[in-house]
Amino acid sequence: MKKLKLGIIGYGFMGQWHNNHAGTLEEVEVVAICDTDPAQLNKAPDTASRYSDHKELLKDERVEWVVICVPNHLHCQIAIDAANAKKHLIVEKPCALNVEEFDRMYAAAKENGVMFTVDQNRRWDRDYSMVKKAWEEKRLGNIFMVKSSLYGVFGKMHDWHEYKEYGGGMLYDWGVHLIDQMLDLIPEKILQVCADMKCAVNKEVDDYFRILLYFESGLTAEIELGTFLLGKMPRFYVAGDQGTMVVEEIKAENGAIYRAGEFREALPETVKNLDAGPTRTFSTKAEDVVYTEELPVIQRRHNDWNDYFRNIVGVINGKEELIVKPEQVRRVLQVMEAARESAAIRRSVSFEQRRNS
Amino acid sequence: MKKLKLGIIGYGFMGQWHNNHAGTLEEVEVVAICDTDPAQLNKAPDTASRYSDHKELLKDERVEWVVICVPNHLHCQIAIDAANAKKHLIVEKPCALNVEEFDRMYAAAKENGVMFTVDQNRRWDRDYSMVKKAWEEKRLGNIFMVKSSLYGVFGKMHDWHEYKEYGGGMLYDWGVHLIDQMLDLIPEKILQVCADMKCAVNKEVDDYFRILLYFESGLTAEIELGTFLLGKMPRFYVAGDQGTMVVEEIKAENGAIYRAGEFREALPETVKNLDAGPTRTFSTKAEDVVYTEELPVIQRRHNDWNDYFRNIVGVINGKEELIVKPEQVRRVLQVMEAARESAAIRRSVSFEQRRNS
Repeated sequence: MKKLKLGIIGYGFMGQWHNNHAGTLEEVEVVAICDTDPAQLNKAPDTASRYSDHKELLKDERVEWVVICVPNHLHCQIAIDAANAKKHLIVEKPCALNVEEFDRMYAAAKENGVMFTVDQNRRWDRDYSMVKKAWEEKRLGNIFMVKSSLYGVFGKMHDWHEYKEYGGGMLYDWGVHLIDQMLDLIPEKILQVCADMKCAVNKEVDDYFRILLYFESGLTAEIELGTFLLGKMPRFYVAGDQGTMVVEEIKAENGAIYRAGEFREALPETVKNLDAGPTRTFSTKAEDVVYTEELPVIQRRHNDWNDYFRNIVGVINGKEELIVKPEQVRRVLQVMEAARESAAIRRSVSFEQRRNS
Repeated sequence: MKKLKLGIIGYGFMGQWHNNHAGTLEEVEVVAICDTDPAQLNKAPDTASRYSDHKELLKDERVEWVVICVPNHLHCQIAIDAANAKKHLIVEKPCALNVEEFDRMYAAAKENGVMFTVDQNRRWDRDYSMVKKAWEEKRLGNIFMVKSSLYGVFGKMHDWHEYKEYGGGMLYDWGVHLIDQMLDLIPEKILQVCADMKCAVNKEVDDYFRILLYFESGLTAEIELGTFLLGKMPRFYVAGDQGTMVVEEIKAENGAIYRAGEFREALPETVKNLDAGPTRTFSTKAEDVVYTEELPVIQRRHNDWNDYFRNIVGVINGKEELIVKPEQVRRVLQVMEAARESAAIRRSVSFEQRRNS
């Protein structure tokens, strides 16, 4: 089998991760690795040529495609250079710092006829896959509320993510995944974006945000993330008029679909001695009425993103259509810009009608 | 001891509740009870005079104060009648359907020199009291996020709460408590209100809402309620830069203050084999770093609202200042109106600067 020859630009945490994942596919061979830091470059496998300058790697004629995993503020220029060198390219997320950068990168890719996509691997995550499956199978009835939440306890950002000038902060780092998943889940026009962002325990970059997306059908989706939220919260919470689905963590080992039987239709006639005082609606006796069903079964192993890379290989070989499309990547960046704007002025901002007019 | 003679107008669920609570204080004697439904009136204790028309009860000269606990759409006229009959009055929450009604009711009370307040008894709830105590003692450091959430499983509304024309729906029924608590907790100007409201499983009234209050200092508070949310969620979640406080349920028997020790300052240098895939920030190993402290101690017994009624007795006797003030009640109604407006147009609406100008 002819192997697709991959160059990795940036050999930090994600560069090494790509070597250990994409690099292990039988259709792929990592032939070149670049990093400006000799200590990082030193970690490259002996089988790959080493470069300290991405322009040198791009001259390596064996390289057919590259993965760009340098700090965020460097994506744009390196992607344009790679496109001009006629290499197919995957850019690490977030693809660009803003839509203006994206447009220049994508223009260069189109001009040079190369594949251009972003590592939105988390569309293949187990937690998200379960939500998407339950959603598509209408197991929850009419969905009226959905939350995608990520609560961490480690507080401080790592490496260059701690600094604004490198494109740090959690909206860029993880927000881009959570937004990408939500837009993939709900293929609708967005009317308004309402966001809140904070530097809770970091000095200059966002480490807490909440984004509300008001979709055209009436559904409002919430995306919330914090690096210093010490009480656990479910990763996904999806509420429909026929049941509620909870996926507890990314690994998706815990959670359930909850249903309520006859209590959905009418309150019991007489409810007495409730824990909550004078209320019939919010008795805490949920355990008496709610029963559970198992989460949808996802065959894919946890942490197996090979389907993402197989799609890339298929696209480069002209056999498949790209799953993570540039237009989708652009829309995610638009939502991020709208969220930043909304958080800055502390009110909701109009989305699709303004941006596409 | 001279007992304050109380009349109860409306002897449904809450009327009976007042008889069994306010009525048991040694400073209080229930002397008159009114209901238009003979079956309800029949439940009144023999020691009280029975009336089928509130105007007749108001002519009973023994009655010094009344509690008005009829369906919401009837509050306004009966409160005005009571004020004109020179009775002190507690109106069940929500005081009125809107600010315009409130203003007429309060004007009548002022004109007649009678006490006018609302049964916002949940300022005395254990769960809320714990949050307020931790907040005031600054146990969480600088607070950057607060959620007050009430997730129920019973779906359908009860009695007249199911219908719009009687002032039904959950914003009126419970929203008024949750908003009142939040405004009591955060004594700041509100800049914007952003809300979402749904009829999830009921036909015509709201049974799900989320309200974001953007306070002047930068803090954004969330209030969320649903009657058909089957997965449990904490009643209060308060996140500060020194820790997180979680109160699990109204009864406040479960919960903790969480702290994170050294991990607040820096991520570990090497983190490997995380459950969540390529992320250092969102490893799921919270149990290795987070430790807990007990919730603040609240001496008051659960479901003891006598302090609320003692304040009322003190006010009527000229010995105390009213805790639940008409101006506060009015502001809660303003927030409710802003929330309805925001949910209807699906964007945030300006609050204080517009409304007070």
